Parts: sequence; structure tokens; C-alpha cells
Amino acid sequence: MEKLVNIKLGSNENSIIIVDQRALPLDLKYMEITNKEEAFFAIESLAVRGAPAIGIFAGYAMYVLSKDIVKNAKDEKSAKDALRELADYLNSSRPTAVNLHYVLERVMARIKDVSKDEIVATLKDEAVKVHNEDKAMCKAISEYGLTLLKDGMGVITHCNAGPLATSEYGTAQGPLIMSKERGLNIRVYADETRPLLQGARLTSFELHNAGVDVTLICDNMASLVMKKGLIDIAFVGADRIAANGDFANKIGTSGVAILAKHYNIPFYTFAPSSTIDLSCATGEDIVIEERSGDEIAEKFYAHRMAPKGIKTFNPAFDVTDHSLLAGIVTEKGIIRPPFDVNLKKLFG
Amino acid sequence: MEKLVNIKLGSNENSIIIVDQRALPLDLKYMEITNKEEAFFAIESLAVRGAPAIGIFAGYAMYVLSKDIVKNAKDEKSAKDALRELADYLNSSRPTAVNLHYVLERVMARIKDVSKDEIVATLKDEAVKVHNEDKAMCKAISEYGLTLLKDGMGVITHCNAGPLATSEYGTAQGPLIMSKERGLNIRVYADETRPLLQGARLTSFELHNAGVDVTLICDNMASLVMKKGLIDIAFVGADRIAANGDFANKIGTSGVAILAKHYNIPFYTFAPSSTIDLSCATGEDIVIEERSGDEIAEKFYAHRMAPKGIKTFNPAFDVTDHSLLAGIVTEKGIIRPPFDVNLKKLFG
Repeated sequence: MEKLVNIKLGSNENSIIIVDQRALPLDLKYMEITNKEEAFFAIESLAVRGAPAIGIFAGYAMYVLSKDIVKNAKDEKSAKDALRELADYLNSSRPTAVNLHYVLERVMARIKDVSKDEIVATLKDEAVKVHNEDKAMCKAISEYGLTLLKDGMGVITHCNAGPLATSEYGTAQGPLIMSKERGLNIRVYADETRPLLQGARLTSFELHNAGVDVTLICDNMASLVMKKGLIDIAFVGADRIAANGDFANKIGTSGVAILAKHYNIPFYTFAPSSTIDLSCATGEDIVIEERSGDEIAEKFYAHRMAPKGIKTFNPAFDVTDHSLLAGIVTEKGIIRPPFDVNLKKLFG
Repeated sequence: MEKLVNIKLGSNENSIIIVDQRALPLDLKYMEITNKEEAFFAIESLAVRGAPAIGIFAGYAMYVLSKDIVKNAKDEKSAKDALRELADYLNSSRPTAVNLHYVLERVMARIKDVSKDEIVATLKDEAVKVHNEDKAMCKAISEYGLTLLKDGMGVITHCNAGPLATSEYGTAQGPLIMSKERGLNIRVYADETRPLLQGARLTSFELHNAGVDVTLICDNMASLVMKKGLIDIAFVGADRIAANGDFANKIGTSGVAILAKHYNIPFYTFAPSSTIDLSCATGEDIVIEERSGDEIAEKFYAHRMAPKGIKTFNPAFDVTDHSLLAGIVTEKGIIRPPFDVNLKKLFG
């Protein structure tokens, strides 16, 4: 077991070292990035993935790669022009990654008014700030989540909101990893999370690597492990939280919430407060992305596992009703029902 | 679309023709069995599978293969000895298949007191009887189930209890196939049923082949399709039904039942009355088989999808509480709550 550091600077800060997420869950391999082509490839190939992680990586890439650019530039303007070109190039590696765009523009804005000599140090400062902000947010969420755990508890999770996609602890997985560091022994049951298997590939890897007692189950086994009394609490992430507390998360989340209610198990969602969208009144307003049925019928398999021409329905998310929710854990604290009132109080 | 006949006699009744279930769900291929080695291989290799189907096949195999045996035998005793040898040989192809043993002993008992000349005809008579009994049972269950369906309804299913494993209609899938023959248009949502994917591989194949409008979903999508109002009723099979109506079925069944209750969707189980075990007071008495975790982590995949050394929990069945059940559909009718009273009335 080694502490999972998904993104860090290499020796003399002339490279970035990342966990190559493509090799997971079978191997924990690292990849060293020393030039812009490698940085582009790392994002494009999903060696680094997860919105916050991509942003953090892009910040460090701008810093590390700026050293040669600034050294070789004849003046301030040509240095900044070359860095703008680099930012646009990196941004094109995953055009739909909003966080990538956000961080690249954020670091470029920081160097707007600085002299040539100050560029490299300024980029480093901003990259470290981006990273530290994410660390602090994940840590705060994890600390609040940790208050919900007691030694010996059983926790069920669905999908992945862990350290690989963020900086250090992640959100829903954060308290589970932190609990081990603080000497608690909890038992985690990780839903494999079909069809993309984030629970099997990522969550179980992260928790196992952190020394947490994790057991991988198929999604349809959640009812049985709850019935057997193995589960005391349920932790999931959230992609978008409406003003009344309804929230969208990976497909299957609402099912876990209904089972948890049936078995009287408290059910919590974890997310940065930026996920709360008060302009969205209820879950009814959240549009669910539908993805290709090939993910159900073919993906990951040695050969197709469903008849040719079969109809499929592959929604990527579902909406969980706020009535099933014991609390929303954010970096600003745990929000309790009534959510419409308490979300407005904190974020309105 | 062709009507699926999983087991039938070949030309001049000198062979048995079966659907080669190993090629499913990609191809509907037939296999012709003309000698005992092929018959053994068909069972051993799972070309024919499902307890009732294996029994039916074994009955026909005894009949077809008896022709040469009787012709070449010098007297009644040597004919019967050779047939006993054949029965024992076929029985060894899948030693744990109770139904295989049951049918082989049943046909052997029938020829105990018949003369050499009558053996072949007697074996045919008993084999056809075994087949017809299963057909009649599946048909009766399907007819009762059909009374629960109306044109345009949406039905959710979990796992497989269809014609490939039985004779013609199957149990839980029976009314769905029959509804199409009777001109009803229903929409079926088939859970893929991890980890062994019986829903993807078998149920969706059978229904699609019968012209039923079937949509394959991952198990964790059941909550969303119910919430969207796409489901009016839920049909599942049963492996064992206790005296109070609690029943064991494929893992995940109890989860579907809890979701159905949450969304006010009536939930029915389908099984021959031989599945009802009045000596078993409640579901607490039903022992759940645990299977290898490789089925979760590796099976069907092009490569392993979970970390090496990860703990898994792979229960093959779960028990659904009778309080979640609207009715038990058997060949003798639909049993309604209170199940403890009504099961005893019909089968006590």
C-alpha cells in the first residue's frame, strides 16, 4: 500500500508525474510528462481523468512547460504569445472538459500583467493554488463526512468520487480513506456500477490501495448486504443538486437510496458546494444524459453479450428524491432537511 | 423470427435436435444428436441447460438411442442392462442435475416390466409424457400470468425463466411470449442480471426472438424506468418458495421487489407448485449459495476489471419478503395474500 498521489511535480520541477489511470485497476503505474505532446496525450488518452484532476494537471503543465518557453522567448510578449498557444493546444486535448478550460484561463489571467521574469513563478503559484484549493475542499468534505462514521461501521458506496479524479481524498470516498488514517476500521461495500464499472475499476482500487476493508459487489447485491445487517450508512457523490435537495448522480444511485430507506439506513450525498444549483428548482429540471447501448451490450466484454439488434436504454444518471436523503455533505458543512430552506440559508 | 423449439426429434426419430445454447445470444444454431457421446457432450457442455430442459432431453435421448440397443440385444435382459448402462452414463454428464437423474430413473422404471419388443415404444411414450407435462405446466402458468397483462403495459423482468430452460413458454417469461401470440403489445424491460447476465444473454434473446418489444437495461436502471412510469407490473421466477410466501430467486430479485413497492408497482413471482416447500417456514430457512468472486471480477470480460486481491461477495440468490409480493403464479392458479393461509389451503 502506498498513498495514492495522482499528480505531482517531478525532480527539479521539470516534469509532472501522474498515475496512469489506463493501467488501473490491474497496475499502479506512473507516467512522467516532460513536454507538451506528452501532456496533450496524457489528457487525451485518459491517463489523467476526472474534472478536478485534469484541471490540476493542466495548471502544473503550464508551469513546468513555461520554463523553456520563457527562457527561449526574446521578450515578454513573445513569451506570453507562446504560452497562449500552449494553453490553446492543451485545451484542445479534451474540448468538453470545462474544468480544463477554466484552469487554463485562470493561470493565463494571472500572468496578464506580470513581467517576463515573473511568469514562471506566477504560473507555479497559481498551479499550486488550484491544487491546494481542491485539496482543502476534499479535506473539508471528508472531515465532515468522517463525523458520520464510527469504528466497525459498514458503508455502501455507488460509483466513484475518489482521489484519482480529484486531488487527495475525493468527496464520497474521502471520509472512507480518512477513517483509515485516523485508525477507524470500517467495512466498505462498493457497488461495481454498471455499465462503466467505476466501482470495480476505481473505487475498489482506491480504497484497497488505502488499506480500507473493501468488498466489491454487483449493483443488484445491495439489497442483500443491507438485509444481512452489513450496512450502517450509505455514501454517494452528486453531479448536480437542485434547490429542494433532489440530486443527480450516477445511474443506480436512486435505487440504492430507496433500498437504504427500506432498510432504515441513512443515506448521504457528498459534493462541493459548486454542485448546488439553486436555479434548478427540483430534480424534474435535471436532464439525464442517454449514452450508447453498446456500453451495456459490448463494452469490456471479450465478445458481445446481448442479441444483435436488441433495444437498450442506457441513462448515465438518475435523480434521487430529497425525501430519501439524510444529508448533503459539502466543504461548508452537512446540510440537513428541510433542504429547500437550509440550502437557501447557506448558499442563497 | 422463428418459434423457438429448444428440443425436438429429428427425421425418422433417429436423432434429437436442440438449440445449441452455447452460441447464444449471438446465433440461433441447432445441434443434432445421434449417439450417446454426443448426448453426453450436449449436457456436459451446456449446449442444453435449464433443469426441465435437461430432463426432457434425457428422456428423448433414452428413446432414440434405445432403438439400436434393443435391435442389437440378444434378449430382454441384455437390452435392459445396456439401457441401464446408458442411463448411468448420461446421468454422469452433470451429476448435480436432480432433474436429469429424476427423468432417467422415471423412464427406466417404466420399462421394468415390459417385454423386449415393447421397450422402444414405452420409452417414447414416457419421454413424450415428460415433455408434455412440462409444456402443460408452463402453459398453465403462462395462461394465469396472461390474466395480469393488458395491452400496452410495461413489464420489468429479472434473470431468466423462459422457454430455453423449459419446454415451450417458460414460467415468468411465459405470459410475455404468450401475450404476443394473443395479439397484445406489451413492453418488457429486461434486467441484464449480473454477474451471469442471464437477462442479457437469454431473456432478451428469447423475447426478441418471439417478437416481443424488449429493452435491455442494467440492473441499476430499474429504479429510473419505474420512476419514468414505464413499468406497470414486475414478473420474476422463483427457485424456492417458503410456507409464508418468502421466496428465493436470482440475486437482485429482492431489490426489484423493494423498488416496485416504492413505486406502487405490483410484483409477481412465477413457479411450478413443486417449487413451494411448506416444510420451509420462512425465507430465513433458505440457505443462499455463494459463488466465486471471479464471476464479478473477471468472467465474460476481455481482461480482469477489478484490482487483484480485492475481496468480493457473490451470493447467487436472495430472499424476497412475502410482504412485497402481490401474488404467486403457479400452474394451479394465482395465490394471493395471506400466503401462509392460502399456500396451505392449496398445497397443505
